[in-house]
Amino acid sequence: MQETLFKRLEALYPDMVAFRRDLHMNPELSHHEVETPRKVAAFLDELGLEVKTEVGGRGVTGKLVGGKPGKTVALRADFDALPIQDEKDAPYKSKVDGVMHACGHDVHTAGLLHVAKVLSEHKEDLPGTVVFIHQFAEEVIPGGARFMVEDGCLDGVDAVFGAHVSSTEPLGSVGYREGPVMANGDTFEITIHGKGGHAANPHLATDPLAIGGQLMASLQQIVSRHTDPLKSAVVTVASFNGGDSFNVIPDTANLRGTVRTFEPEVRDSVEAAIKSIAESTCEGFGATAEVEYVRGYPSVVNDPGETRRFRRVAESIYGKENVSEIPPMMGMEDFAYYVREKPGSFAWVGGAMPDDEAVYPHHHPKFDVHEESMLYIGKLFIATVFDYMSNPENTD
Amino acid sequence: MQETLFKRLEALYPDMVAFRRDLHMNPELSHHEVETPRKVAAFLDELGLEVKTEVGGRGVTGKLVGGKPGKTVALRADFDALPIQDEKDAPYKSKVDGVMHACGHDVHTAGLLHVAKVLSEHKEDLPGTVVFIHQFAEEVIPGGARFMVEDGCLDGVDAVFGAHVSSTEPLGSVGYREGPVMANGDTFEITIHGKGGHAANPHLATDPLAIGGQLMASLQQIVSRHTDPLKSAVVTVASFNGGDSFNVIPDTANLRGTVRTFEPEVRDSVEAAIKSIAESTCEGFGATAEVEYVRGYPSVVNDPGETRRFRRVAESIYGKENVSEIPPMMGMEDFAYYVREKPGSFAWVGGAMPDDEAVYPHHHPKFDVHEESMLYIGKLFIATVFDYMSNPENTD
Amino acid sequence: MQETLFKRLEALYPDMVAFRRDLHMNPELSHHEVETPRKVAAFLDELGLEVKTEVGGRGVTGKLVGGKPGKTVALRADFDALPIQDEKDAPYKSKVDGVMHACGHDVHTAGLLHVAKVLSEHKEDLPGTVVFIHQFAEEVIPGGARFMVEDGCLDGVDAVFGAHVSSTEPLGSVGYREGPVMANGDTFEITIHGKGGHAANPHLATDPLAIGGQLMASLQQIVSRHTDPLKSAVVTVASFNGGDSFNVIPDTANLRGTVRTFEPEVRDSVEAAIKSIAESTCEGFGATAEVEYVRGYPSVVNDPGETRRFRRVAESIYGKENVSEIPPMMGMEDFAYYVREKPGSFAWVGGAMPDDEAVYPHHHPKFDVHEESMLYIGKLFIATVFDYMSNPENTD
Amino acid sequence: MQETLFKRLEALYPDMVAFRRDLHMNPELSHHEVETPRKVAAFLDELGLEVKTEVGGRGVTGKLVGGKPGKTVALRADFDALPIQDEKDAPYKSKVDGVMHACGHDVHTAGLLHVAKVLSEHKEDLPGTVVFIHQFAEEVIPGGARFMVEDGCLDGVDAVFGAHVSSTEPLGSVGYREGPVMANGDTFEITIHGKGGHAANPHLATDPLAIGGQLMASLQQIVSRHTDPLKSAVVTVASFNGGDSFNVIPDTANLRGTVRTFEPEVRDSVEAAIKSIAESTCEGFGATAEVEYVRGYPSVVNDPGETRRFRRVAESIYGKENVSEIPPMMGMEDFAYYVREKPGSFAWVGGAMPDDEAVYPHHHPKFDVHEESMLYIGKLFIATVFDYMSNPENTD
Repeated sequence: MQETLFKRLEALYPDMVAFRRDLHMNPELSHHEVETPRKVAAFLDELGLEVKTEVGGRGVTGKLVGGKPGKTVALRADFDALPIQDEKDAPYKSKVDGVMHACGHDVHTAGLLHVAKVLSEHKEDLPGTVVFIHQFAEEVIPGGARFMVEDGCLDGVDAVFGAHVSSTEPLGSVGYREGPVMANGDTFEITIHGKGGHAANPHLATDPLAIGGQLMASLQQIVSRHTDPLKSAVVTVASFNGGDSFNVIPDTANLRGTVRTFEPEVRDSVEAAIKSIAESTCEGFGATAEVEYVRGYPSVVNDPGETRRFRRVAESIYGKENVSEIPPMMGMEDFAYYVREKPGSFAWVGGAMPDDEAVYPHHHPKFDVHEESMLYIGKLFIATVFDYMSNPENTD
Repeated sequence: MQETLFKRLEALYPDMVAFRRDLHMNPELSHHEVETPRKVAAFLDELGLEVKTEVGGRGVTGKLVGGKPGKTVALRADFDALPIQDEKDAPYKSKVDGVMHACGHDVHTAGLLHVAKVLSEHKEDLPGTVVFIHQFAEEVIPGGARFMVEDGCLDGVDAVFGAHVSSTEPLGSVGYREGPVMANGDTFEITIHGKGGHAANPHLATDPLAIGGQLMASLQQIVSRHTDPLKSAVVTVASFNGGDSFNVIPDTANLRGTVRTFEPEVRDSVEAAIKSIAESTCEGFGATAEVEYVRGYPSVVNDPGETRRFRRVAESIYGKENVSEIPPMMGMEDFAYYVREKPGSFAWVGGAMPDDEAVYPHHHPKFDVHEESMLYIGKLFIATVFDYMSNPENTD
Repeated sequence: MQETLFKRLEALYPDMVAFRRDLHMNPELSHHEVETPRKVAAFLDELGLEVKTEVGGRGVTGKLVGGKPGKTVALRADFDALPIQDEKDAPYKSKVDGVMHACGHDVHTAGLLHVAKVLSEHKEDLPGTVVFIHQFAEEVIPGGARFMVEDGCLDGVDAVFGAHVSSTEPLGSVGYREGPVMANGDTFEITIHGKGGHAANPHLATDPLAIGGQLMASLQQIVSRHTDPLKSAVVTVASFNGGDSFNVIPDTANLRGTVRTFEPEVRDSVEAAIKSIAESTCEGFGATAEVEYVRGYPSVVNDPGETRRFRRVAESIYGKENVSEIPPMMGMEDFAYYVREKPGSFAWVGGAMPDDEAVYPHHHPKFDVHEESMLYIGKLFIATVFDYMSNPENTD
Repeated sequence: MQETLFKRLEALYPDMVAFRRDLHMNPELSHHEVETPRKVAAFLDELGLEVKTEVGGRGVTGKLVGGKPGKTVALRADFDALPIQDEKDAPYKSKVDGVMHACGHDVHTAGLLHVAKVLSEHKEDLPGTVVFIHQFAEEVIPGGARFMVEDGCLDGVDAVFGAHVSSTEPLGSVGYREGPVMANGDTFEITIHGKGGHAANPHLATDPLAIGGQLMASLQQIVSRHTDPLKSAVVTVASFNGGDSFNVIPDTANLRGTVRTFEPEVRDSVEAAIKSIAESTCEGFGATAEVEYVRGYPSVVNDPGETRRFRRVAESIYGKENVSEIPPMMGMEDFAYYVREKPGSFAWVGGAMPDDEAVYPHHHPKFDVHEESMLYIGKLFIATVFDYMSNPENTD
């Protein structure tokens, strides 16, 4: 049975590639997706699925009810692009200035749609229901996942799986991890309100840049002194801006940055420390700090059992040697919202370009991935769906 | 004699005001003065003076040879405006968007031209020669003074005097100081070259903002620890800019600022310390510092004898109670270049608006001065010229 | 067989306690152990073992050759005490002022000796050889382990096991970990050579305290910015001393501290960064840094296979519920030197006092442990010896 | 008349030297003077003056009522020594271990006593009264001056003069200054209360050393940013101490230092800023700061008129070329308390050793002064007394 489905998926490979390249040439920014969800919905419609659009905003879902009763499994792909100028040399290069699929979401989407096609062609043999979640706006906080979940996309779902292509890992390799796999990703903005003045009279001003320098130094202690060395935390000030002249002390300085953590208690502690240090540092010098801390995606915490299932399935189709535990990653993913609601797991599947020269990291202007990764992700999804439906309890 | 000249100047007051307002409504930026020097030259031409234009660039000089032989005295006024939007409510408000006479140079110019008129009307009685120096570009380093001096504007000159109106001191008050009265004013720019990267992976980047924060803190020691507490120094970083996102560590951070000192050895020591601290701080963290230090105007060092003369003359016409020693100022003035060449003195003359509500500091968008200050400066110049020519040696 | 040995060990419990209390009342500092190794050697002698003394300094080893041929297993206990004043209230309180067994090495020693006794009583049944390593000076770098290894204590040994009692974990619990379990522990000392002087004339001095403050701040970046957030590092300055008056700037400041890491590349990177930052920071201010970095014990890296054996054995005698994987610890242990030479594993065995009130951390003046922990460690050792000898290859 | 007195003083020079050397060999620490005041009182008694002892503690005063009515002038000398080991090679080297007259107070005392002798020998010609103030404990806050003033030593006094020998200025030179001449000298102590712990677990501690480093850096801004660059301030942390091991984070860190300023408003502002910055910095990191700020001697503010008199007198006896205005000094002197009560002036009189090799700064273990400085100070005092009494109003 599985072999039949895999063969069929392989046969559809040229269609997948064509669909992916169409998306790639016509990328749409997060929260501004229009044509992409239209194409996705049309494709699923064509398959005869129960399709919902505008789920939680711009999301699309398709429900495939199998011919036999059983559990409901959700599979998720995201479809938004990034504000990056495509600099690669390829016939399917982005046609939109300054916008590009530089994270592989086009591959996720085209792959999942053809998984839907294969499964729908064999729906009589399917012992359960599959929900295809096509998500908008993964790249930009607050992300689409949260709103799709709130809008019911997981209603009736028993388990949820996702996979992300990796442009730097070898084609077909699979990385899994139980527990936290992606970080809590928060952002913060600190505005130091001092008092501007002439550079020659510092005593008449309250210099927000000198205070900001001190604050930069003090913030380092959050990671170096306040955080358990066995736990991970990143506090990065990625922008520091104040003043635009040589001789006028500005009124304010603006610091913006990001925080990455895994454990909720570390997240809480870092947030509290940023506020405390910023406010006290400014107060000591007679300035005030305005601190805005925005919690982004929580950590993706993979269900241990479903992760073991995902791993077992992957090993069975790709071999043990191609499946390995990966360390947690400091990046973030709003897949987190699905696994907060339902047991599930999120894996990374290798899709490095065959030519080493063409390997670039995600979000790079020359980013590209091996299109066969769509087959690897697709087969993993198909096999996992059947494994789950056949034996939901087998999570060893 | 002096009384006659003063009376004549007073009679010309409406013309002075009209000339000043015309300049005020048509301000021109430093190094971009076109109409202003044209008007100045035309005025001096009309008086029959020996006029030179394009002196050192855009400067104008007029030479008035008196009817009797004697010494040569130079008087200087500057005529450039500032890149500030005029926000005051007055019929003579600037007509040029974003450009404004916010430092009183229009008043200096109109005043000095009418001094030239009065003196030229009485040139037969003048026991010497007067050179009127109308200078461009005082506000922007490297300033016009240096180039006018290089172009010979002080050739044959025995002494040089200048006066600056003050928008915050009472009308008619005169402030003098022997020795250093305005500061050495230098600028610096430090570019920290680190290595950008994703905010979640600080160890793969060399964070120029974290290093910059440390550098800001370290630079404070130049004043607090390296400088003789009995001497003055200011090191202000007025701009700190790096990064423009929440999650991308930038490659570089840029710091720009100004240094003010009086003594040459303090200036040297501060410059050396900025370079040493910037370079070493960056090196310690694996980054590099590019430091550009530009020496601006040197300190205005008033000749003690000519300052005593200036003071004596001022006291004789305005009374002792209106003339006082002022502390040195951290601001800078390219009058410095004249007094490096010839004995001379630079004084401040009060010109506060009569209505307290209308008093704003120099370079403020609502800056304005009492136009009668032109009379006070004018009389001081006239009396000083005669005092010098009559008794050049009397500098007690 | 195992049951017989365990019963015998239990019967010897009162002797073990007596021996432990004697050591406890007569603690000896690291590198100053005299009576302790004498007592240990006498005990092993009495058993008829092949005893060596002054192994690598003050170490003692005993070799027990079993009645049947087989592998050689080493078991290690350390016997030095700490410079801490015993503040607990117990009849077996330390009799030596300022010296105390505050880390349980007395328990390790008494326990292992009685394991030797039990095994020697049944040596005919022993299918191999056991080497009992009684180590001096575990607490003080460079530690005794390294010298005992150099002196041949592991010659002919096939595997080595050690266990440490924990005063805070429940009696009988066992913690294991494959790979790094204890940290690399290094120390550093930075002397900032400035130039002293009168506090009122900072410009004539090179202030090592102001520079030291800056250095403290800069050192934070080693952990916060230079280290992979998924890896662990600690850089602690534990002493900062300079000056002893209110008004004399001292010539020098002295910083001493410790570094903890697991991976060799992190260790290298931290060491390099401390040197680079210290030297550059000082240089920037005209001072010099003298940096001494002393590598202490390397990380204890447990052999994965032998750790699985240790775990399997522990689970078989104490139950799965009492055996768990522990996170790596930032503390250090010179057991590292044994497992660098031979496969082996180091486990932690719970020995919390029954009364919660009496639970204190290691190195605390009121530290004490449950004496039955000697039985738990002893049985684990006995069972592991037989497991290894019976089936050396079974490391699943 | 003056000549007669000067000649007599010169004749007494060997006695002066003998008296000075006796004091020099038998120095007594501040607040512990016993024999010194006894000798002073005996000397004044012998002269027949009205002597008071234990004035304000250990002070001695002598009143000489002249033969003619007139004003009352006070002259002051201090007599305490310092906790410094005498390292010079001289027959009159200190006999007391670790105690030394390293600031010339012995010279002040011997000189003033012989002035008293000369004046008392000519008291019939004296048109007024002289009060000789022999002060204890000038070197140690709170100093003796304040208590002697409170105990009435200036009662009935019209003007007060003091002079300090300088070991580095040429013999006989006189330095004067109107207004502030010596600084406000305050001390502060900051204790940072964090929470100690093991160096490997910084997150369980609140590290007072890391916080202290940050605080050191922040304190620099008080001078570099908060203080008018035209005014003087010094904030020196002269001791920073915390921790005494490599691996135990201490509970506290202790910072001690001194502040020097001239203007009361700068003093207030620095004190407030130290407290604000210390408290806020600690608070931001979860620690607390205990700040003790002790105001020491206020600035010595010389009366302008009496300083002009002192200068005029000095010029008349030593020549204009040997008398010069000195810059204010960052050192402190409790002569401040006398000139807060009565018009007066404090001058510096050169007393450099004839051999350049023997010139050492004050408080140096090899400090010594030219003993003829006693004659220079003595004559200045004598002439000033007569000048004042003859023409109290002549302060031009």
